[in-house]
Amino acid sequence: MMSVTTKATIASFGGKLLKLSHVASTTRCEMSFNLYLPPQSQSQKVPVLIYLSGLTCTAENCSEKGFFQHGASKKGIAVLYPDTSPRGLNIEGENDAYDFGTGAGFYVDATKAPYDAGYNMYSYVTEELPQTVFAAFPQLDASRVSITGHSMGGHGALTLFLRNPGKYKSVSAFAPITNPTNCPWGQKAFKGYFGDDQQAKWKEHDATELLKKWNGGPLDILIDVGTGDNFYKQGQLLPENFEAAARDVGVQGLRVRYQPDYDHSYYTMASFADDHVEHAAKYLFA
Amino acid sequence: MMSVTTKATIASFGGKLLKLSHVASTTRCEMSFNLYLPPQSQSQKVPVLIYLSGLTCTAENCSEKGFFQHGASKKGIAVLYPDTSPRGLNIEGENDAYDFGTGAGFYVDATKAPYDAGYNMYSYVTEELPQTVFAAFPQLDASRVSITGHSMGGHGALTLFLRNPGKYKSVSAFAPITNPTNCPWGQKAFKGYFGDDQQAKWKEHDATELLKKWNGGPLDILIDVGTGDNFYKQGQLLPENFEAAARDVGVQGLRVRYQPDYDHSYYTMASFADDHVEHAAKYLFA
Repeated sequence: MMSVTTKATIASFGGKLLKLSHVASTTRCEMSFNLYLPPQSQSQKVPVLIYLSGLTCTAENCSEKGFFQHGASKKGIAVLYPDTSPRGLNIEGENDAYDFGTGAGFYVDATKAPYDAGYNMYSYVTEELPQTVFAAFPQLDASRVSITGHSMGGHGALTLFLRNPGKYKSVSAFAPITNPTNCPWGQKAFKGYFGDDQQAKWKEHDATELLKKWNGGPLDILIDVGTGDNFYKQGQLLPENFEAAARDVGVQGLRVRYQPDYDHSYYTMASFADDHVEHAAKYLFA
Repeated sequence: MMSVTTKATIASFGGKLLKLSHVASTTRCEMSFNLYLPPQSQSQKVPVLIYLSGLTCTAENCSEKGFFQHGASKKGIAVLYPDTSPRGLNIEGENDAYDFGTGAGFYVDATKAPYDAGYNMYSYVTEELPQTVFAAFPQLDASRVSITGHSMGGHGALTLFLRNPGKYKSVSAFAPITNPTNCPWGQKAFKGYFGDDQQAKWKEHDATELLKKWNGGPLDILIDVGTGDNFYKQGQLLPENFEAAARDVGVQGLRVRYQPDYDHSYYTMASFADDHVEHAAKYLFA
C-alpha cells in the first residue's frame, strides 16, 4: 500500500536524487515524484523541504533547473518534489488547457464533478505523499518539514501553511498566486474544482483570505517576485494584495522582495534558491 | 558583419543571460549562442569562460541546468555558450544521427565533402565567435579567456587548449572524449569530417595525441568523470588513456577526479560547476 518504486537514482551535489513513483489512493492513479537525499542522510535523520511546482510542471523541472540541491546539500535538508496533478484519469476536458486539469491541480481537493474523482492534490500533498515517503525513508524526520513553491506551487505552499498552523516549520514562495479568487488563473481553477457558487470554499484556498484570519502566531514568510515577470504584470500573482492583507490585520514578518528584472522562469528560482533553503534551515534546525 | 541580434535578456544570479545570434561566415548560417554577463561587468572589464556543449546540445542546456552562472556571478566571469554545430545547411545526412552532423560538429573544420561546406566549428569557436563577441561587448576582456566543456565539448576544450598554447588561460572538462581516434563517437565523426585516410588530421584533434606532443609549459588540467557515466563505461571517454599519455611524457598537473556514481548528465556539471569556475578564476585573475 505504501510501496514506492525507484525509477532512477542520480548523484547530485554529494547526495542522491531519487526518481520515484507510487500508486496513490487520494488521486486514484500512479504518481511520480522526486526526492533529494543530502549526503548527511547517510548518517543522521534529516528534515524535509517540500517544493510545490507551478502550472504545466512535473517533479522534474525544479530538480533539474531550480538548484535547491545546492543549498540542501550544504545544510543537510531533503527536498521532496511532488507532481502537480493526477495524470491519466481520463476525465473529460482535463487535457484541454495548460492552466486547468492535468498539470494544474492547484493543491485543492475538488468537490465538483467530474474533477472530484481524483483531483485531490490537497490531501495528496498534505497527507498521503508525506506518509508514504516517511514510511519508505526512515532517514527523514517527519517532525521537521518546511514548504515552498513557485507560482501555482507558491499558492500551494502559502495556503497549506496557513491552513495548517504548526504543520510546517516555515514557508516561502517564488512568484506565488497569492489571491487566486481575484485572478484569472485562480478563478478558472476554483470554478472548475469547486463550482461557481462555492465562494466560501474558494476563500479557504486563497492565501490572502487565509492571512486575514490567521491566528497561528508570529509569521516569517519570504516571497520573491520578479519585476520582469509577465504573470506578475498581468495580475495573476497580486502580491500587493497579500501585503495589504498583512498590513490590515497587523501581521508582521512578511517579506516580499521585488527582484528587479527577474522573470517567471527557473532562472529566478536558481538565483534565489539558496536564500529559500537558508530560510527553511533557520526553522528546521531551530 | 559583426552584428549580433539579442533575442532575450534574462536576469540570472545578479547578472544577465543574453540569448544571441549572428550570421557566421565560417559556418555559413545563422548561429545562436548565449552569453552570461556577471554583475561586475556593469562597472569593469570581465574575463570570459567558454563552455563547449556535448552531442545533441545547444547553448540552452548548460545555461539552464549547468549552474555555471552561480560561480561566475560571484567571481565576476562572463560565460560564453556556443552552439554545437551549424544548423539548417541542408547537407545530405546531417540530421540522420545524434552523433554526427547537426548538434555534433566536434569542434573541427571538416575537410571532406559535403561537410566542408560549413562544418567549421574549430574556426568558429576559436576565431569568428570570440571576435564577434568582443566587438559587440566591450565590457569583455579579450586577453583573459578560459575554456571548459562537457563530453564532445570536453574534447573541444582540451583540443582547442592544447592546439593553441597561450590562447586560453586555463582548461577543464567534464566527462571529455579524450581519445577520439580510439572511440566509436570520435572515429565516426573524424571519418565523416576528415575521411578515413587522414590519420594525421585525426591526431591533430585528439587530446591524448596532442598531449604527447605538448611543449607549451606547465599544465594544470581539471577533469571530472563520473564512475556511473554510461559513456565512460562504454569506452567513449577513455580518460585513462589521457592520464597514461601524461605519465608517458612526464606532464605534471593533470587532475582526473573519478566522481563516485555520477552520470553523464547536467546533474554532474551542476554539482561541480563551482569547482571548474574556481579553476578558471585562478588563472583569469592571476
